[in-house]
Amino acid sequence: MKTIAITMGDAAGIGPEIIAAAWEKLKTIPNCRTVVYGHPHIIRRAATLRNTNTEIECWPCCRNDVLDVQPGTIDARAGEAAYQSICRAIDDAKNNTVDAIVTAPINKAALHLAGHHYPGHTEIFAEQCGIDNYAMMLYLGPQEHMSRDGKPSMVGHHGLAVVHVTLHSAMRTIFEQITVDSVFAKIRLADGFMQRMIGPTGKPRIGVCALNPHAGEGGLFGDEEVRIIEPAVHRAVAEGIHAAGPKPADTIMIDAQAGKYDAVVAMFHDQGHIAFKLLGMYRAVNITLGLPIIRTSVAHGTAFDKAWQGIAESGSLTEAVRVALRMC
Amino acid sequence: MKTIAITMGDAAGIGPEIIAAAWEKLKTIPNCRTVVYGHPHIIRRAATLRNTNTEIECWPCCRNDVLDVQPGTIDARAGEAAYQSICRAIDDAKNNTVDAIVTAPINKAALHLAGHHYPGHTEIFAEQCGIDNYAMMLYLGPQEHMSRDGKPSMVGHHGLAVVHVTLHSAMRTIFEQITVDSVFAKIRLADGFMQRMIGPTGKPRIGVCALNPHAGEGGLFGDEEVRIIEPAVHRAVAEGIHAAGPKPADTIMIDAQAGKYDAVVAMFHDQGHIAFKLLGMYRAVNITLGLPIIRTSVAHGTAFDKAWQGIAESGSLTEAVRVALRMC
Repeated sequence: MKTIAITMGDAAGIGPEIIAAAWEKLKTIPNCRTVVYGHPHIIRRAATLRNTNTEIECWPCCRNDVLDVQPGTIDARAGEAAYQSICRAIDDAKNNTVDAIVTAPINKAALHLAGHHYPGHTEIFAEQCGIDNYAMMLYLGPQEHMSRDGKPSMVGHHGLAVVHVTLHSAMRTIFEQITVDSVFAKIRLADGFMQRMIGPTGKPRIGVCALNPHAGEGGLFGDEEVRIIEPAVHRAVAEGIHAAGPKPADTIMIDAQAGKYDAVVAMFHDQGHIAFKLLGMYRAVNITLGLPIIRTSVAHGTAFDKAWQGIAESGSLTEAVRVALRMC
Repeated sequence: MKTIAITMGDAAGIGPEIIAAAWEKLKTIPNCRTVVYGHPHIIRRAATLRNTNTEIECWPCCRNDVLDVQPGTIDARAGEAAYQSICRAIDDAKNNTVDAIVTAPINKAALHLAGHHYPGHTEIFAEQCGIDNYAMMLYLGPQEHMSRDGKPSMVGHHGLAVVHVTLHSAMRTIFEQITVDSVFAKIRLADGFMQRMIGPTGKPRIGVCALNPHAGEGGLFGDEEVRIIEPAVHRAVAEGIHAAGPKPADTIMIDAQAGKYDAVVAMFHDQGHIAFKLLGMYRAVNITLGLPIIRTSVAHGTAFDKAWQGIAESGSLTEAVRVALRMC
């Protein structure tokens, strides 16, 4: 039996209600106990909204002022409550009280208003674990890659991972972050993760995106492909990794959809996320690699425009729990 | 009866064979005569490769040295032949000998090797027509939006258009091109085009992408949303256009897939193309707006890795002819 901590996320967003909506399904997962970290009263409100019949176990981590937060608003009290839940879950994971953490979405502006100046969840985990070298990966599992209308999508048999070289950065600032070393590091990370998912019998196929349109069209639209990405791919190939690229990001995603790659290395946020959401938005899972503890997350945000209306989809949360369990 | 000129494209790419593969279907389109501009012998080779039983009408525009071009290679002779075909078609369109032009893909490096230093097709058209203000639009028609496996996709009833604020530019150089004026101009263009497709009874819904991840997350990851894109959207709304944004590019594409928008304004190439290819790669059509002549194009490239193997899909070419005919 493994225990998975689920952090409540921002109380003004869809976090509490997707936990409530997923709860009965989570209870059916074998050898898995789930525990919410948050405010029990918020979770009870969400359970009422989503007609959850099973008692949701919630460990209280937050002050009562979060109870006054209005749905869909940026509020320091919600940011503080989300932060406290995350910190408590990290402490418990470090102490082995829980085996893995699954996080519901937070609002970064609320987090900042509460005085916690992190770009996102991942950086909180990295700091609390004393880790510099980590990465976020998007993953669409092999059994979970259904499109929105329930038809199977066409990603590979072992699922599809997407790793980003740059992520939560202004587009103007990504260029300095894209280096031979950083691209190579992400290729190796993607390879290592998918090797674990495939097992020792197979070799992951890693597709590496170009930065510029048409992969720079032979140098006409930028030279990062020739100067940076190609040397990084060569270094990976020299290490025995089945890496290919740089390839135009729009065609690589079509190939990934057709099952040609097990992982794709994207140069920036939208390159990976646009494709990933279209391929399996409601099933996609975030995984933070490089931490001493296991952490997965839903791949969507707080969706303030839909929060507390009883309509938010909980598929990504369920999958995040399943993937965390598989990683335990 | 309308006459549509189809330019052969780069002879080393998939242009000739997709023309041959589409030919018999093109012949069934009512009130439509198609004529190829290129080298008749290249077209004959393609017809043999794709077992085309109907004679393909081809107006000779190229020197014979294009016959020695090898498949899948960048060759100045192919670049020159492609250029000559385009120029002849433009002349004939200007003289009203043909009613519209549909272009097969060219290789820009080959074009440059031949001494024609254009970023792409569109700029040749603009120069030959003496036009400064033009734009490329991707369009997925209302009846043609099938996914690769033949299932209907979920874009809106009038199809989905995508207009780019920047397109064939190195990513480092896009920032200076994204201004309130340029974003507004593209919103208006998208609105005007979709208004024509919808007709006077409806109002196009235009979604405008953010530039930065999470639409800048309230200024944390860049300020172009607040400084540039939001004012451009406000200006459009003040003119009575149903524009919304800036919205994160990854979620806007999910909403477009669900039929929430008739057109999306993307800030750069990959933002629009990644989604568009996943939504309907083999049916997507390029349209150049602002020209005095009608021009549509396939939405894919020369695909040198697949050229002259008899496997290239011709759906986009057929759709490009259909859309050109509709615009006549």
